[in-house]
Amino acid sequence: MNRDANHFRNQDSHSNASMPIHHSSSAYPSLRNITIEDFQLSSTGLTEEQRAQALAQLHEYLSIQKANFLGYQVNQQLDYEDDLKPYLNYHVNNVGDPFIDGNLTIHSKWMERAVLDYYARVWNARLPHNPADGESYWGYVVSMGCTEGNLYGLWNARDYLAGKLLLEEHTAEEEARVASFGGHPRSLLRRLIYKQALPLDGQPHAYTPVVFYSEDTHYSIIKAGIVLGLHTFYQIGQHYYPNENPLAPGQPWSKEVPSTQGSTGPGSIDIPSLVKLVEFFAAKGYPILICFNYGTTFKGAYDDVEAAGKALMPIFQRYGLHERKVYYDPSDPNQFDLRTGYWFHVDGALGAAYMPFVEMAYNAEKIAQRGPNFDFRLPFVHSIAMSGHKWIGAPCPCGIYMTKTKYQLRPPDNPEYIGSPDTTFAGSRNGLSAMILWDYLAKTSYEGEIEKALYTEKMAEYAVQKLKELEQHLGESLWVERTPLSLTIRFKQANPNIIFKYSLSSETLFVNGQKRAYNHIFIMAHVTTQLIDQLITDLRQPGAFPSQPTVAKPPEIAPTRHPKHLAHFPHLGRGFH
Amino acid sequence: MNRDANHFRNQDSHSNASMPIHHSSSAYPSLRNITIEDFQLSSTGLTEEQRAQALAQLHEYLSIQKANFLGYQVNQQLDYEDDLKPYLNYHVNNVGDPFIDGNLTIHSKWMERAVLDYYARVWNARLPHNPADGESYWGYVVSMGCTEGNLYGLWNARDYLAGKLLLEEHTAEEEARVASFGGHPRSLLRRLIYKQALPLDGQPHAYTPVVFYSEDTHYSIIKAGIVLGLHTFYQIGQHYYPNENPLAPGQPWSKEVPSTQGSTGPGSIDIPSLVKLVEFFAAKGYPILICFNYGTTFKGAYDDVEAAGKALMPIFQRYGLHERKVYYDPSDPNQFDLRTGYWFHVDGALGAAYMPFVEMAYNAEKIAQRGPNFDFRLPFVHSIAMSGHKWIGAPCPCGIYMTKTKYQLRPPDNPEYIGSPDTTFAGSRNGLSAMILWDYLAKTSYEGEIEKALYTEKMAEYAVQKLKELEQHLGESLWVERTPLSLTIRFKQANPNIIFKYSLSSETLFVNGQKRAYNHIFIMAHVTTQLIDQLITDLRQPGAFPSQPTVAKPPEIAPTRHPKHLAHFPHLGRGFH
Repeated sequence: MNRDANHFRNQDSHSNASMPIHHSSSAYPSLRNITIEDFQLSSTGLTEEQRAQALAQLHEYLSIQKANFLGYQVNQQLDYEDDLKPYLNYHVNNVGDPFIDGNLTIHSKWMERAVLDYYARVWNARLPHNPADGESYWGYVVSMGCTEGNLYGLWNARDYLAGKLLLEEHTAEEEARVASFGGHPRSLLRRLIYKQALPLDGQPHAYTPVVFYSEDTHYSIIKAGIVLGLHTFYQIGQHYYPNENPLAPGQPWSKEVPSTQGSTGPGSIDIPSLVKLVEFFAAKGYPILICFNYGTTFKGAYDDVEAAGKALMPIFQRYGLHERKVYYDPSDPNQFDLRTGYWFHVDGALGAAYMPFVEMAYNAEKIAQRGPNFDFRLPFVHSIAMSGHKWIGAPCPCGIYMTKTKYQLRPPDNPEYIGSPDTTFAGSRNGLSAMILWDYLAKTSYEGEIEKALYTEKMAEYAVQKLKELEQHLGESLWVERTPLSLTIRFKQANPNIIFKYSLSSETLFVNGQKRAYNHIFIMAHVTTQLIDQLITDLRQPGAFPSQPTVAKPPEIAPTRHPKHLAHFPHLGRGFH
Repeated sequence: MNRDANHFRNQDSHSNASMPIHHSSSAYPSLRNITIEDFQLSSTGLTEEQRAQALAQLHEYLSIQKANFLGYQVNQQLDYEDDLKPYLNYHVNNVGDPFIDGNLTIHSKWMERAVLDYYARVWNARLPHNPADGESYWGYVVSMGCTEGNLYGLWNARDYLAGKLLLEEHTAEEEARVASFGGHPRSLLRRLIYKQALPLDGQPHAYTPVVFYSEDTHYSIIKAGIVLGLHTFYQIGQHYYPNENPLAPGQPWSKEVPSTQGSTGPGSIDIPSLVKLVEFFAAKGYPILICFNYGTTFKGAYDDVEAAGKALMPIFQRYGLHERKVYYDPSDPNQFDLRTGYWFHVDGALGAAYMPFVEMAYNAEKIAQRGPNFDFRLPFVHSIAMSGHKWIGAPCPCGIYMTKTKYQLRPPDNPEYIGSPDTTFAGSRNGLSAMILWDYLAKTSYEGEIEKALYTEKMAEYAVQKLKELEQHLGESLWVERTPLSLTIRFKQANPNIIFKYSLSSETLFVNGQKRAYNHIFIMAHVTTQLIDQLITDLRQPGAFPSQPTVAKPPEIAPTRHPKHLAHFPHLGRGFH
């Protein structure tokens, strides 16, 4: 195709791309069809009027949807416009390590460090960050949301447990100098060598991490495992030890660690099952990588990280995984790293942001319950990831990754190998995110966060009560359920207009062979009794709950094995969809 | 440590964290010390006054730095505040596939699709996206900048070339139903199975991709390779074929594909070397993954993707890599995917955004040169990644990943295996980024982009001319160099105050055994003759160029082999630092 500034292709091809919005419902009398034509761009740009109209239309749509938003763990109570609007005309970039300013001077790393310090305090880590103090925290504000925090944590865990080392190539400069003679200039790159630790005699699995997570885990963790080429206990167990499943000898391995009391339970990881599974692999010398949920996306459940760690530490001791020597210099057996043979990562997307304040409320006797410990008070926790746009609320996905300095993959403390590792995931990092988180924290206090936590708890109770009253009114079960301290409540699936109006997410569950379609709502800080009342009013209307088939056929097939499968990747069903 | 809302740790520990800002220079009379204390957060929040003061201080600092910004390929001419400021109080989330709206209704996917369509036209892809048309484009707006686009592209390439398949587990629902009897409800997850293609007789390397990129490649590509567990031709060559280096028989393999004329050249990949290296591995049946630069971070050079593809296609034909059958069903040899045995990824962070307009200018005889072809006109291009915050300008890192629908990893078109793949990298995706890109494109036109490209080209020529005049004035070489059509100019390193004032990035190069420290500037749309003149004025002052040692020792060592190294990871030297 010949390029031509005046040429532009026929745009009619887009007429089949109109949006499936349920605007025809009486719930949406004012919203006209939105289609891609309204936003179509062209080689000549839009007129002022066209642009203004498209923006106005989007604004009207988003304002209505924001006012009724109930279905996802995303706070819509945001207050950044006044303080931060000038920065829509700045590119603020926190590229590289948060603790090194670098030459890209348009950054907000001072705010980033203040935000990291704040959460280091809230999560009981040692601060300030100090490269010379391995116990001090290290972290950064992520640009991609908790997915990035989880991916970065698992990457670090993989390389740490797999005996990878990052060394500076001390001959690089001399090589570049030598190569540059004879008219061949060479750029001087401080090369870091990504190296494998020396194999350990009689320990063939010493550098093969095995991953564990519960069946309630968000699919982003499974996806991260695939990206990183990690293997779960199911994959390794089913492939190498098909008849040795410690949870059910002779039966196929379960794909994920069972949750407590299965799907009828609260959604947290079943620790006795975890212990049995971990011990099986620890005894064979495999390093152990566990992803905990705090809390889960579906039920809002909190894994008991403390209880898991206390149950597992004796096992790690027994099999030499509590601390091990990782050798990297074949010519010098005194050169080694001391590393744990396990890594505990906590996916605290929602819970890590507010459960510390629930705990403070509990200590102040303002609430009857608190969640299990999950933070750096527990010596066996390696890394925590948290979302910024969920509890706190932010215009763009953001969050925090935090670990201890000693768990960063960086050159060992050796005069011959000194270097500066590439410490974050992305190149460019969103400086606006750090400013947003800082602005939020500058405007709030621990007391404010406690009040916010108590408010959402009360509001969740209110929603459960109203749904139960609706059940009585309708004379039928709506399958209303809420895990204690979680901010999510699920109930029988409503009709598509209601789903659209409140942005409800959907789930399907089997109960006694019967398929049940659910919706769930998340009670975030912007949710009011008025909004819940309005939902209840809509749910009270005839046709609000489409009928679902109730016949349960008896079992026909037995679960089959899938020995050739590399991973079971639950694409739908947990998290946003 | 006991939690207590009223307890807050001593903040004095931070006094050692003040910023190394060169504010004492006469270039910076008005800027007082910024330290982390000015932004410190506390358990009680900040007062209005404290917050306002911190924000004012940051604003003053960033405004000064923005006015003088020259060192990085980041446009600081932004105009989004008026149109988009309300959205600092909205969380707009484009979670999941851009072409499926989903239940999270607060999204800007209409704008995202319009932006993708725009670049599909500019890059000569087939549009609109149509799941049933494999040749049509597919893409999404990334949240993490070009790093995410490159990582996602290489992940897709890895799994495509390694014979990975994503199949829907059609027994999942029945298994869940069966398991739910007896009081054990099971959630219904539409599981996707991540599966390995069947091995091919006599082709042991058929699913082991080999990665190629030039020595001028940005380190984010190398990092992505490590994350994904990919291996380069150097790693595989050095390990398995140590004496068969086709570029220099008997010599160690080079770590990356040489650039044309080495470091004295323009910085583009040397195609004869690439062809020799690729043929070596293609002949052994390895699938080929090539990352092209468009352009490079250091020199702004454009790899000639078209010439490379034309030279390589006969080789792929010869060794059956132009198209191959990937079998996945052991019971049915007629079940296969047709795939290429190679993948061309183009890292077009900066160049993909503006070189199409340089080409239009060339076609309209407004400029004497154009860059090589790189886009979907070339049938052998699989994926392109582009930054949004570089050429276009954006307050947060963003960009575009684009491929063809047929290259997405998704279930094959088989009635037994139907599914919906997880199509983007992150869970939550930044809806504001799509709005920013849309707003920019709505305000501009192809003509506007052509003018902008001609302006930066003219400004780059102006900067070279001024630097050459300065050389004459000072009577010494400043090592001024610019690759044709690139927006970056490098010259002898200036003193730290000047580096800080203009946010200059630094590079070190060896020339005839002599180490040379360089700065480079990038001419983006916000750069004016006034700003360049101001830089020249500062560079004209005594002490502007610190002396550098000039003695070149003769060679002492020969380059050594590093057979045990997994990867050479050039941490510093290319890209931001």
